[in-house]
Amino acid sequence: MTAVASVNWDQTHWDDFAASLGEIETLRDPGQVAKLSKDYYGYSPILQAQLADKVGDIVVRPANEAEVIRTAALCVQHRVPLTVRGAGTGNYGQCIPLQGGVILDMARMQAVKWVRPGAACVEPGAKLVAIDRQTREQGWEIRMAPSTYRTATIGGFIGGGSGGIGSITYGQLRDRGNLHAVRVVTMEDEPRVIELRGDAVQQVNHAYGTNGIITELEIPLGPAYAWAELIVTFPDFMTAARFGQTLGDADGLIKKLICICAAPIPNYFAAFRSVLPPDSHCALLMIAESCLEPFAELVKAWNGTIVYQKSAQEASKGTAIYEYTWNHTTLHARSVDPSLTYLQTLFPPDRELKLLQQMYEHFGDEVMMHLEYIRVNGSVLPAALQIVRYSNPERLQEIIKYHEDQGAFIANPHTYILEDGGRKEIDPVQLAFKQQVDPYGLLNPGKMKAWEMRI
Amino acid sequence: MTAVASVNWDQTHWDDFAASLGEIETLRDPGQVAKLSKDYYGYSPILQAQLADKVGDIVVRPANEAEVIRTAALCVQHRVPLTVRGAGTGNYGQCIPLQGGVILDMARMQAVKWVRPGAACVEPGAKLVAIDRQTREQGWEIRMAPSTYRTATIGGFIGGGSGGIGSITYGQLRDRGNLHAVRVVTMEDEPRVIELRGDAVQQVNHAYGTNGIITELEIPLGPAYAWAELIVTFPDFMTAARFGQTLGDADGLIKKLICICAAPIPNYFAAFRSVLPPDSHCALLMIAESCLEPFAELVKAWNGTIVYQKSAQEASKGTAIYEYTWNHTTLHARSVDPSLTYLQTLFPPDRELKLLQQMYEHFGDEVMMHLEYIRVNGSVLPAALQIVRYSNPERLQEIIKYHEDQGAFIANPHTYILEDGGRKEIDPVQLAFKQQVDPYGLLNPGKMKAWEMRI
Repeated sequence: MTAVASVNWDQTHWDDFAASLGEIETLRDPGQVAKLSKDYYGYSPILQAQLADKVGDIVVRPANEAEVIRTAALCVQHRVPLTVRGAGTGNYGQCIPLQGGVILDMARMQAVKWVRPGAACVEPGAKLVAIDRQTREQGWEIRMAPSTYRTATIGGFIGGGSGGIGSITYGQLRDRGNLHAVRVVTMEDEPRVIELRGDAVQQVNHAYGTNGIITELEIPLGPAYAWAELIVTFPDFMTAARFGQTLGDADGLIKKLICICAAPIPNYFAAFRSVLPPDSHCALLMIAESCLEPFAELVKAWNGTIVYQKSAQEASKGTAIYEYTWNHTTLHARSVDPSLTYLQTLFPPDRELKLLQQMYEHFGDEVMMHLEYIRVNGSVLPAALQIVRYSNPERLQEIIKYHEDQGAFIANPHTYILEDGGRKEIDPVQLAFKQQVDPYGLLNPGKMKAWEMRI
Repeated sequence: MTAVASVNWDQTHWDDFAASLGEIETLRDPGQVAKLSKDYYGYSPILQAQLADKVGDIVVRPANEAEVIRTAALCVQHRVPLTVRGAGTGNYGQCIPLQGGVILDMARMQAVKWVRPGAACVEPGAKLVAIDRQTREQGWEIRMAPSTYRTATIGGFIGGGSGGIGSITYGQLRDRGNLHAVRVVTMEDEPRVIELRGDAVQQVNHAYGTNGIITELEIPLGPAYAWAELIVTFPDFMTAARFGQTLGDADGLIKKLICICAAPIPNYFAAFRSVLPPDSHCALLMIAESCLEPFAELVKAWNGTIVYQKSAQEASKGTAIYEYTWNHTTLHARSVDPSLTYLQTLFPPDRELKLLQQMYEHFGDEVMMHLEYIRVNGSVLPAALQIVRYSNPERLQEIIKYHEDQGAFIANPHTYILEDGGRKEIDPVQLAFKQQVDPYGLLNPGKMKAWEMRI
């Protein structure tokens, strides 16, 4: 098996290729193709430099699994790379076609096939917000979502995400139980449909679409509480951080989001300027309405001040608080100062938050602290998406190294390589599955290090 | 203020007392009064000896808060002790009238006043199972329950309980958010109704009815998943215990009950004799049906064998698995061998379960290991209700001391004193509230050490 290279066809070749796809929808307009070759990797100056010129040759927009199979077969026949795309809201270049070829845009496959208590079956192009719109009629919602909830697709989230809003309760997407089943189309000479259930889903979970084209997913659902949105300010950052830890550990209080921002980050939140005093340290929260009364007691115990509160009903309109959390925090900061970038850090379990405090004090204004509390194997931990005043790649690397040397885990967001981000190691299961279903290495080539480095 | 003693009235006095209560229902039949003076303290040979002769003088069964107030006023006027009673399913003599007087049986005040998403308002005599019957129509259920779920009342559970089935998700009753509000009637010369909300509920939460008569409660609800019931066997006890810890920490798997029993305990479970091989080590579990597929993968990873599985639909009839867990485990063991008793132990956070293993190996068959995993301040811990082969009080004390010396926390179930059980220390808040609302010390006298020992 040989490494795939870009096919370097001229337009006539691509005309033939498109014609072979028959009635399957394609896009050839260079502007459209360029646009659908992008995601939000621009938060990283490193990735900006590496990915700016990467572009696909043609966008294919299948309407159903049969069209996916036909597209896959044609790609295999011509050894054309195929890169699957959801809404392109990722931040690590997950769906950037490094070697051109087909962009498989799953947006048209957006059916919600069924909803049962605690589970749903959906097509990969279904938007998270659209899934919830249907499941909430039965009292359920998706367990977790990125801050791009309104635009992201479920297939893109499973393929390229790891957790988000809701992870304070349900942990991360990789945890057993957070993905029930997937159907994938293979890139073999005669593409097959394989259904993966149970632990077998891990073969393609968070694999950037490198080892199978997901055409259907069964996902678990959580109870759809009425989520109130709140902002609470605190006298200093460490008090805010400790409040977040305590709220995370408060088993009797139901929450969906615990985001803690150190000053001056909240200064970037234009929408909240009227409620947030300058240089506030604050928590952005989603709390079940039925828990607000005991929640207010916790706030009082930590000397917090509730400066903003919206009922679930009010929150369904206008500014959504979650669009100021996770990587939307970075987005708002960068919209004011595009020179800013960010880091992703997981701190070890320690309710005293000593290492977190050390980093906060050590870097000061260069690495502005932004925490998202999540559950990791049953423990509530602060994950940080620090906003970094970027100077150059070497200094960024120094900052990363300092964190790692002190015992913090960095999920580097400045790489498009699957294993160099949060994973840190080769996943033999995912590699073996790719060897089986993508023998020519056509799926999202250049992303899975294990494949590129294999003997 | 003087300590209360039994009033030592003759029957004529009690006739007058009953007459003063007018149309409020009373019971005077000695057999009935004796029966309603008991709870399930008999699991403890120590309490058996101490409480066997304790009996009330009259049972009063109020139909509403107004009748509670009238009863309270009459008791204050005559300095008659009043001991509140739910269904009498407690195990520590919580509702045994140490100094006679009135047994206030709350069974008739059983209304469910309202049910909203995530919360309900109920009267104290409402049975847990009856509350759920109404809340489940809206998709909700009470967050946690004792194994006496079918008979216990919510007032008795809040007054005398601490947690149970559901504590693996929501922690314990004392945790902020697990009790929203209570109304209490005071024992002052002119009894008042006080509403306690927020942290103020802790003044009467788990106070054995020593400092106010609860007449209404607002409680939080959790989502009513369809709970499958399962029994899983394991090759050895420590594997079963570690499976329980891992399941508890598995954020993606929704569970309500993780009970682990070492051999030979399951031999006492007559109802499961056909499915449980002799001398099994097993887990009794309630798992959301929607999670059963990934759950089965976890079982496989720990070499478990699912020997029993009932859907939620099937589980609504016949044997209920939860009636073999928590203190029902002890009940079944004692129904075979009445010489057995039990302990209550909380092990410190340690995913390796070293101290648990040490105790298991040290005591062997004398202290048979029975674990209930619960959340404590955000951590999943094994609480043990070990079944003890009882020899004498000194040996029991030795066993307790050994546990405490090694760092395990014992919530002694062989005492009827509030502070000598799980609490271990005087609660100044509850004492202050008693001084305010029960100046004559008439409520459940002899149970609150802080009151008895006050200067």
